Amino acid sequence: MPELPPELNPPARILLGPGPSNVHPRVYQAMMAPVLGHLDPDFLRIMDETKELLRTVFRTQNEETIAVSGTGSAGMEAAVANLIEPGERAVVCINGYFGERIAEIASRYGAEVMRVEAEWGHIIEPEAVEAALKAAGRTKLVAIVHAETSTGVSQPLADIVRLAHQHDAFLLVDAVTSLAGCQVAVDDWGIDACYSASQKCLSCPPGLAPLTLSPQAGEAVRSRETKVRSWYLDVTLLDNYWGGKRAYHHTAPITMVYALREGLRLAVEEGLEARIARHRRHGEALWAGLEAMGLALHAPEGHRLPVLTTVRIPEGIDDLKLRRALLYEHSIEIGGGLGPLAGKVWRIGLMGHSSSAENVLAVLAALEHELAGQGYRLEKGAGVAAADRVLES
Amino acid sequence: MPELPPELNPPARILLGPGPSNVHPRVYQAMMAPVLGHLDPDFLRIMDETKELLRTVFRTQNEETIAVSGTGSAGMEAAVANLIEPGERAVVCINGYFGERIAEIASRYGAEVMRVEAEWGHIIEPEAVEAALKAAGRTKLVAIVHAETSTGVSQPLADIVRLAHQHDAFLLVDAVTSLAGCQVAVDDWGIDACYSASQKCLSCPPGLAPLTLSPQAGEAVRSRETKVRSWYLDVTLLDNYWGGKRAYHHTAPITMVYALREGLRLAVEEGLEARIARHRRHGEALWAGLEAMGLALHAPEGHRLPVLTTVRIPEGIDDLKLRRALLYEHSIEIGGGLGPLAGKVWRIGLMGHSSSAENVLAVLAALEHELAGQGYRLEKGAGVAAADRVLES
Repeated sequence: MPELPPELNPPARILLGPGPSNVHPRVYQAMMAPVLGHLDPDFLRIMDETKELLRTVFRTQNEETIAVSGTGSAGMEAAVANLIEPGERAVVCINGYFGERIAEIASRYGAEVMRVEAEWGHIIEPEAVEAALKAAGRTKLVAIVHAETSTGVSQPLADIVRLAHQHDAFLLVDAVTSLAGCQVAVDDWGIDACYSASQKCLSCPPGLAPLTLSPQAGEAVRSRETKVRSWYLDVTLLDNYWGGKRAYHHTAPITMVYALREGLRLAVEEGLEARIARHRRHGEALWAGLEAMGLALHAPEGHRLPVLTTVRIPEGIDDLKLRRALLYEHSIEIGGGLGPLAGKVWRIGLMGHSSSAENVLAVLAALEHELAGQGYRLEKGAGVAAADRVLES
Repeated sequence: MPELPPELNPPARILLGPGPSNVHPRVYQAMMAPVLGHLDPDFLRIMDETKELLRTVFRTQNEETIAVSGTGSAGMEAAVANLIEPGERAVVCINGYFGERIAEIASRYGAEVMRVEAEWGHIIEPEAVEAALKAAGRTKLVAIVHAETSTGVSQPLADIVRLAHQHDAFLLVDAVTSLAGCQVAVDDWGIDACYSASQKCLSCPPGLAPLTLSPQAGEAVRSRETKVRSWYLDVTLLDNYWGGKRAYHHTAPITMVYALREGLRLAVEEGLEARIARHRRHGEALWAGLEAMGLALHAPEGHRLPVLTTVRIPEGIDDLKLRRALLYEHSIEIGGGLGPLAGKVWRIGLMGHSSSAENVLAVLAALEHELAGQGYRLEKGAGVAAADRVLES
């Protein structure tokens, strides 16, 4: 017998990176439920309940609301692959890593991509989108990231929706990091396609991507002239399984659906408004604490994501050494920068079950300890005290 | 607050359909381990161990051996999408539902598909493949299903491999239902691309698709002239994460990787040969029992899959009524027929943790009860007794 690796025993971490966040204990419990067949009537009922919960959390009545059997990026690819036919134009807003990814995927699926760019850390200005739409001519899709996990920026959407619709284009919104932690109102805002992920503000393990399409977007998908290039992500086929016909497509990831259902139940049980307020309060406490330590936040005031904070790494501090110390000495994971922000910022997530007062205080105390250890001068206890004041207000 | 669906409480079933099979208790335990970040060094080590275990179970030294973050069909799509460039020819063997699916996916990815067909329930004859390859001219890929879950047929591969290689084509093998339950020897047999799924003979929940590429197939993927159309399933990008560079691609489904690692550990711990013998013994016991009840097996002797048995539904028996009775009265799931076999056969899986003597006897006893209830004439106890003789031999 080949040598076996040891029994699984990963360390318990406080997950404050860009996701996954910590899994809620009730989600773990749900995952222990016995696996059913993917066509078992009892499982189909569980899918229906999950779909209904997804609608509540997306704030939509969209019939086409499903969970794609893959991680958030599969949701992104599903949205783009179904809405784009080869040769069609997509205006893609890029002010961070995930906007860039949408452009890459759209291009692979044959879109003529027109890029609207802004610096990483800035929002996309509606004027830039308007200019692009005017220059582009007939456009099928405008794509934008609501919560850019690479920069910590929260993108206002009202003007972008209006512009997209004025030019008869669909608006596709990446809500991977915002859903169930920030305001997302698919129907009220007029979003045509929106996707998210299970492992951020929904406190589930990674592995499913909630996706919703407006009736108009769904109709466009159903009346495509060409087949969707990806069979696995073909929404019409997926919807035949999630919807009325129950036609077998692929074997649904049963246990992950159990997890998602429970994560959604927790969100609805807490109340979406209360949940969003919790995320905001903890985000603001973190910001106050970081600023009291003399650190600079990267995202501009007014456009900061409470669920994902980017903070600039001070001059002279060793990024990797500090993150390793947080991980191994304090059992806290935070994220490093991506792309042009690599080595320049840290990314601190406070999402779902990870968004707690204890975690805010723990990460501030640990950062203070490790920054001081690297010779950074700060007033002892100032960060925690400032955060505490926000938490108690 | 909108009305919440009740606490999750699905019934416990004996899963003897075409998959998912029952999850091993140790796999459930592994899934309770705390979620780590997808770039956490401790998680990267777990990925390395999983990769090594996958190599053992696939019987390969292939460096490019990973688990695709989707169900078995995502593995199928990944294999096809990476090996096929638009306009290239694929010879696809079709003697069941899943061969048809490969052809559909290959066509979506731009392949010129040449079909080699056989009746559902027959094997693909090497002569037919040879004729197709001679007629086709330059061919990139020959694709075939090793264990056709829709028909219960086990496909001999030796001649097909030889023919593919004689014509400078890669051989792609679907081992979704056979891996870790039947003989699969990727290197010895000369298979170039092989994929499977977590929820069959590996006794995990659905959600991951093991995939391995030979060095030659990997080189062909890396030297493509066009980008792989699917970004999510681009093996070169996936391999940068599973392999040396550890470049972030998507957030791996951490908990499912824990599950797969444990499912693989169980397979290696049992010993692949012992495990395959167990599956064979229980398959043969089931066949003996079904035949003693006067039922006819659909797959021909010598080409039957011990892990998935197709049995013809006797004249006058109500298919759906019987399967519902098995499900609700006996808590046993078996599968119905697909495509041309719908209403004509049942599919009884004995895979992984579900492949046990108790389950063989339970399904035979339940079938006897329900068949008799529908007026089918049989000798009471004959099925169970015949199976018992095989189990004790």
